[in-house]
Amino acid sequence: MVRPVESRVDSVMRTIHERLAARSLVPGERLPSIRQLAEQLHLSKTTVVEAYDRLTADGVIEARRGSGFYVCGHPPPLSLSDVGPALDRSIDPLWISRQSLEAAEDTLKPGCGWLPQSWLPDTEIRRALRQIAREPHSSLLEYGRPYGHPALREQLARRLAEHGVAVGAQQIVLTDSGTQAIDLICRFLLEPGDKVLVDDPGYFNFQALLRAHRVQVLGVPYTPSGPDIEALAGILEQQRPRLYITNSAFHNPTGAVLSPLVAHRLLKLAEAHDLLIVEDDIFADFERENAPRLSAFDGLERVIQVGSFSKTLSASVRCGYIAARPDWCEQLVDLKLATSFGNSPFSAELLHELLRKGSYRRHVEGMRGRLADAMGETLVQLRRLGIQPWLEPRGGIFVWATLPDGLDAAEVSRAALAEGVVLAPGNVFSLSQSCGGFLRFNVAQCPPRVFEVLERAMARTLL
Amino acid sequence: MVRPVESRVDSVMRTIHERLAARSLVPGERLPSIRQLAEQLHLSKTTVVEAYDRLTADGVIEARRGSGFYVCGHPPPLSLSDVGPALDRSIDPLWISRQSLEAAEDTLKPGCGWLPQSWLPDTEIRRALRQIAREPHSSLLEYGRPYGHPALREQLARRLAEHGVAVGAQQIVLTDSGTQAIDLICRFLLEPGDKVLVDDPGYFNFQALLRAHRVQVLGVPYTPSGPDIEALAGILEQQRPRLYITNSAFHNPTGAVLSPLVAHRLLKLAEAHDLLIVEDDIFADFERENAPRLSAFDGLERVIQVGSFSKTLSASVRCGYIAARPDWCEQLVDLKLATSFGNSPFSAELLHELLRKGSYRRHVEGMRGRLADAMGETLVQLRRLGIQPWLEPRGGIFVWATLPDGLDAAEVSRAALAEGVVLAPGNVFSLSQSCGGFLRFNVAQCPPRVFEVLERAMARTLL
Repeated sequence: MVRPVESRVDSVMRTIHERLAARSLVPGERLPSIRQLAEQLHLSKTTVVEAYDRLTADGVIEARRGSGFYVCGHPPPLSLSDVGPALDRSIDPLWISRQSLEAAEDTLKPGCGWLPQSWLPDTEIRRALRQIAREPHSSLLEYGRPYGHPALREQLARRLAEHGVAVGAQQIVLTDSGTQAIDLICRFLLEPGDKVLVDDPGYFNFQALLRAHRVQVLGVPYTPSGPDIEALAGILEQQRPRLYITNSAFHNPTGAVLSPLVAHRLLKLAEAHDLLIVEDDIFADFERENAPRLSAFDGLERVIQVGSFSKTLSASVRCGYIAARPDWCEQLVDLKLATSFGNSPFSAELLHELLRKGSYRRHVEGMRGRLADAMGETLVQLRRLGIQPWLEPRGGIFVWATLPDGLDAAEVSRAALAEGVVLAPGNVFSLSQSCGGFLRFNVAQCPPRVFEVLERAMARTLL
Repeated sequence: MVRPVESRVDSVMRTIHERLAARSLVPGERLPSIRQLAEQLHLSKTTVVEAYDRLTADGVIEARRGSGFYVCGHPPPLSLSDVGPALDRSIDPLWISRQSLEAAEDTLKPGCGWLPQSWLPDTEIRRALRQIAREPHSSLLEYGRPYGHPALREQLARRLAEHGVAVGAQQIVLTDSGTQAIDLICRFLLEPGDKVLVDDPGYFNFQALLRAHRVQVLGVPYTPSGPDIEALAGILEQQRPRLYITNSAFHNPTGAVLSPLVAHRLLKLAEAHDLLIVEDDIFADFERENAPRLSAFDGLERVIQVGSFSKTLSASVRCGYIAARPDWCEQLVDLKLATSFGNSPFSAELLHELLRKGSYRRHVEGMRGRLADAMGETLVQLRRLGIQPWLEPRGGIFVWATLPDGLDAAEVSRAALAEGVVLAPGNVFSLSQSCGGFLRFNVAQCPPRVFEVLERAMARTLL
């Protein structure tokens, strides 16, 4: 087709319109300077000036004093899936969360991160509700105190002391969840563009959360005794991350436990490089014996501990906590009020009622025994299918294991999903996408049918 | 004192150290370029290069390839009080919130934004708790669905329809509070540095919340029928804000109601300037007759409605909602999961149980009658003291009024606080700090002693 004669000015305008159509230029973005574009297109600056003037008159672009020309309109809103690299949906962390949360009643969820309803203390919770309904002074109506329920904070301080973290109630801030606790800390400590370190593999929601803070996420390889200290030293030297987010006792997804040696070296490196650490202690009550805690070693100088009872009591009653330096607590409370006007006093009251009773301790002990049995059974079943555990966890709810024959976990997961079983493929947990042969199993969500479906899914994937 | 002989290089180094000590240069900040500093200090570039090299060797500053020299170390963490202009604590919004939340039992709080416990349906809440404790299918244990409790969302959709907002349950996302709802929307729509418009005067927590998003907050004067449309047009033209956050029915703090004319003009301007709007409808149930809703006029195209039941049912049971375009809801749910892993299913269940009963409607009707009486009494008492209401509100809980004799509301508030009465001085609500003679009164929190203390506080301030 012969193009009709086009003036040079028209051709510049067309170029800009084409870039807009292809979204290589987006609303709010700065255009090339007049000189740059003139050089690029081998045209005179006058031609470009004329084209920009006409595009401005058309309302396509706008001049901003002293700063050049910009595409009119606002940039598109933040989408978590846009911020990071595009992922196959079957290994998109948010998608896995939503699959597990939206799953139909009869779906099996060995890939999810929580216990089945039948393992949780339904009777005790109902009893506590009736107790609160009777108790004339319970907090059913008013906003809570800025730091949260005072008696619950005292209780949490005593619990932390049992784990070797010496802390007063004035260093504990209640939140609506462990996730909200980490979110507040990120708001407090991070600037957009900062670098933040997570474990690879590590809990996938940390990645989703950090994307919402527009920070750069770096991964440190995780070993059976904690983060790889050599690799960590190199990253701290070269990349200078601001914050490291990890879990200590029963690391998610590997089930590993931090060794005292690694804990000590990690804290020395953190001090040398001014690295702050968030230790997510959400699996604490699954431990039979206390593993080292970064917060205990460090005395909450540069470590902040967060936790909640979503795993051991109820995920429906939302209540988490932050244990941190007192001056940071003050600022975190201001941020909490500004962004949520405080956590639920009612949930705190219910949690306080449940923890107050000896029944919580008995419930947790029973749960540990039951988990140990389920762990043993799951390991047997996995080995029968040729699926190799990365380590034999000392407790907790997760087994991290490799598929045989180089099978791809995402493919196996897709095949299992077709039969109503939600698996957790390894790359969901891996920033470097280097865990394609792994799956994470929740031993409390592994009835026999899981392994039947898994066996068929593996066979189908091999074909 | 005679200064010892100092080399030119030393003097440059001393200059940098002095700026660091005075915090006119802070960790993470870029230093002046070598050429700039040489010109500024009338020294050769070689001298500055030498000084920068020695400061680099000392670990005080660092070179970043292609981008100049930066002060070593991390910037200090975000403090809400640092981000905005420094305010007298007595007119610092966060301080007022914390005063009200931390107040002792016998403190009177005419300055707070909620109803006294005795006005809230304690008996009904206790009954609903017992009902939930009995009901075998209630959500006491598991995480909720991503959007939140389906039956409650259906209920909310029907309520919105009664207010003229035609919306399906798939356009409703549950949150843990109205504040969290606005926070998620800000995360979704705003970039740091964006401009956001609020009412002046307006609800103070919007300012605190927006500071946490590092955006530039602009104010539009509020009139008895809504925002000043002339002023708004000018601001949209010149400043191009991205978002406007307001309440429609019973504006906080003025008690004003949006007129249909202003609502229509506002929406036309919003369309012309691509302005998005958050309408916080938290006072909806205090209305006797429905005032215009931006979300009803606009059909949720560019308006997002948020609300909660903290004011009419309980502030202890945290549950709010967002009503928005379906594509935005999807993204907001992803953000909610990433940053809080979902709202409390238990609170949603309790709210659902309370709203299901005819008793909620009766409770709210009774409350409106009681508020009308309290409003009448408060207006009489204020006029007796020469305090002039800005308008006579048609309902709601607030009276916005000017002190006589040019009295300063912050001073009067300080004097009243000494007698255990927390007032809300006007400048807490004013971005331009132009409401120094105003106080906001919560008519439900105004027993006779409030006016006795107020009278003495005014007399003392006059002296």
